[in-house]
Amino acid sequence: MAVTDSTHGTMAAFQLIAVRVADSDGATGLGYTFTVGHGGTAVLALLRDDLADWLVGQPADGIGELWQQMWWRLHWVGRGGVASFAMAAVDIALWDLQARRAGRPLWQHLRETVEWLTGADSPPVVTPYVGGIDLEDPIELLLDRTRDRLESGFRAIKMKVGRPDLAEDVERVTAMRGLLGPDIPLMVDANMRWSVDEAITAARALGGLGLVWLEEPTAPEDWDGHARIADEGGLPIAAGENLHSVAEFRELITRGGVSYPEPDVATVGGITPWLEVARLSAEHDLPITTHGVHDLHVHLLAAIDHASFLEVHGFGLERFIGDPLVISDGQALVPDRPGHGVELDWERLRKSEI
Amino acid sequence: MAVTDSTHGTMAAFQLIAVRVADSDGATGLGYTFTVGHGGTAVLALLRDDLADWLVGQPADGIGELWQQMWWRLHWVGRGGVASFAMAAVDIALWDLQARRAGRPLWQHLRETVEWLTGADSPPVVTPYVGGIDLEDPIELLLDRTRDRLESGFRAIKMKVGRPDLAEDVERVTAMRGLLGPDIPLMVDANMRWSVDEAITAARALGGLGLVWLEEPTAPEDWDGHARIADEGGLPIAAGENLHSVAEFRELITRGGVSYPEPDVATVGGITPWLEVARLSAEHDLPITTHGVHDLHVHLLAAIDHASFLEVHGFGLERFIGDPLVISDGQALVPDRPGHGVELDWERLRKSEI
Repeated sequence: MAVTDSTHGTMAAFQLIAVRVADSDGATGLGYTFTVGHGGTAVLALLRDDLADWLVGQPADGIGELWQQMWWRLHWVGRGGVASFAMAAVDIALWDLQARRAGRPLWQHLRETVEWLTGADSPPVVTPYVGGIDLEDPIELLLDRTRDRLESGFRAIKMKVGRPDLAEDVERVTAMRGLLGPDIPLMVDANMRWSVDEAITAARALGGLGLVWLEEPTAPEDWDGHARIADEGGLPIAAGENLHSVAEFRELITRGGVSYPEPDVATVGGITPWLEVARLSAEHDLPITTHGVHDLHVHLLAAIDHASFLEVHGFGLERFIGDPLVISDGQALVPDRPGHGVELDWERLRKSEI
Repeated sequence: MAVTDSTHGTMAAFQLIAVRVADSDGATGLGYTFTVGHGGTAVLALLRDDLADWLVGQPADGIGELWQQMWWRLHWVGRGGVASFAMAAVDIALWDLQARRAGRPLWQHLRETVEWLTGADSPPVVTPYVGGIDLEDPIELLLDRTRDRLESGFRAIKMKVGRPDLAEDVERVTAMRGLLGPDIPLMVDANMRWSVDEAITAARALGGLGLVWLEEPTAPEDWDGHARIADEGGLPIAAGENLHSVAEFRELITRGGVSYPEPDVATVGGITPWLEVARLSAEHDLPITTHGVHDLHVHLLAAIDHASFLEVHGFGLERFIGDPLVISDGQALVPDRPGHGVELDWERLRKSEI
């Protein structure tokens, strides 16, 4: 399966890297991360050569402390990048193990055990949206696919922008809004395509179309650029899928560059830092959205009080995941299996080994 | 060889990762990077699985363009971390090849070909300093080793600070200043040990001892913290060995957090981004110092007009490097062999393979 967006070009293969942990009582946990085609064996090398042996014998319940130790163990080559992917796989596995031991679904386990999380008794509600990697699709195909998505139960849609000619973006988004009517939430994603000035121009041009957010308008580390786009462009900004540390989110958030922080648990270092980003966002009254790995993020959004939309985007991993997320009438079914409840098809994975 | 500092703990092994490139005429170039004990196989995996095949057949002379392509190729797992190490090894090899083809030492080749570099006719002068990883050394041993270093030709010394009790740091630095007298430059390095407030307190306590700089006082990504330490502590700040992108240096520099930017060519992504950091530093009137791999950095400091001290620190790599840097009477001999002139002992490296 090859897909394209405005910046990543053609992505011919995704890579899934999984970690299984077991404690001395035989309880197990599963964690995983993914790449868009490069770096998978590097993530694997960190896990195999720098983390696995060291993890054996560590106490499984002090996840925060273990996370800090991993951070410093990998610090010289870390502070983001490949290290955040490897740490994510380990951290997710540890949380899964802990929730399974407690016999609770992950979202509930987080509500029960993470001090700042409130709302333990309210029912978990997670509203998904779906996007296509559709920048190259002709308008008719784009609309046809959107009709299919609405029929599948989605009630919120994201589309790509960043065509060479801004007028085409406006035309495509206008057509989409025409199809959706005024009430169905619509987001657009530029995948870092634009300069700051281009993004401001584009945001203004797209301003009358009732967009929930403009995502990744420019280079992810241009904090002040994001703030200018938010101020001068007039659209709410979603960003964060390319940030790999809490410190990076702190910059983006405190400098006013984002309305919808979008941490990816599989690439920001795991559930432990994801929750830190969520806490920071709550302090700034910003709702959290997510990127990828929706089978994990459904739990994280269900656990917090300030959840925005859940991105449903399989990145090809769905072929290896049993019991996939169920979407019904605009809502995601929050799983009640212990832990995150994801099972991987190891037989099939083995055949695709990197 | 095991060494310690205030933050990294015991580092039992360094890892050297090398890249050799050859062009279609048979000209060759050598690049390398290193780790402090973890991540070496991950760097190798990126090189072998994500860069090597793609590099074959690319034009060897458009290094800036190739660098950008590498950046975007690895972007999803990159923007720093392991990717910056792998890219550094490739980029250094490409510059070495280009300088060797031109028959010029690297420093001269850079002066001739990099547009913003001036001073092409002035003799290259590089002043080294040497440091020990000596935080645990008793004062007498510290002073003895310093005497040896002065006898070896060094006329500038760096020592570690960050003892549990600040009074010990003051005592040790005072003793060192007593040994050196008022004229020999002395720097101190805290290896990220302190909080911002602790660093300010420490900087003030060390203020009367004629220090050239206080290095890495706190967490590398705390830009505003560095600026506060510089403002309120009263000592010049050196920092950057843990930064892995030009964007990170831009933050640190533009927010006033550093007096002596300290990019490490082997971990910031190579010569191409190192020069960008140098240009940015020149624009802010900041002299550049370096970290590690002195056999490469001697060329880079020789090429620029705003060089501060060259750190001489082998990280164990010196066992594998022929023709090591020569220090004489307080100066580093700038090599005149084509390229960077470093040859690795491949036989010996093979025996230590990771």
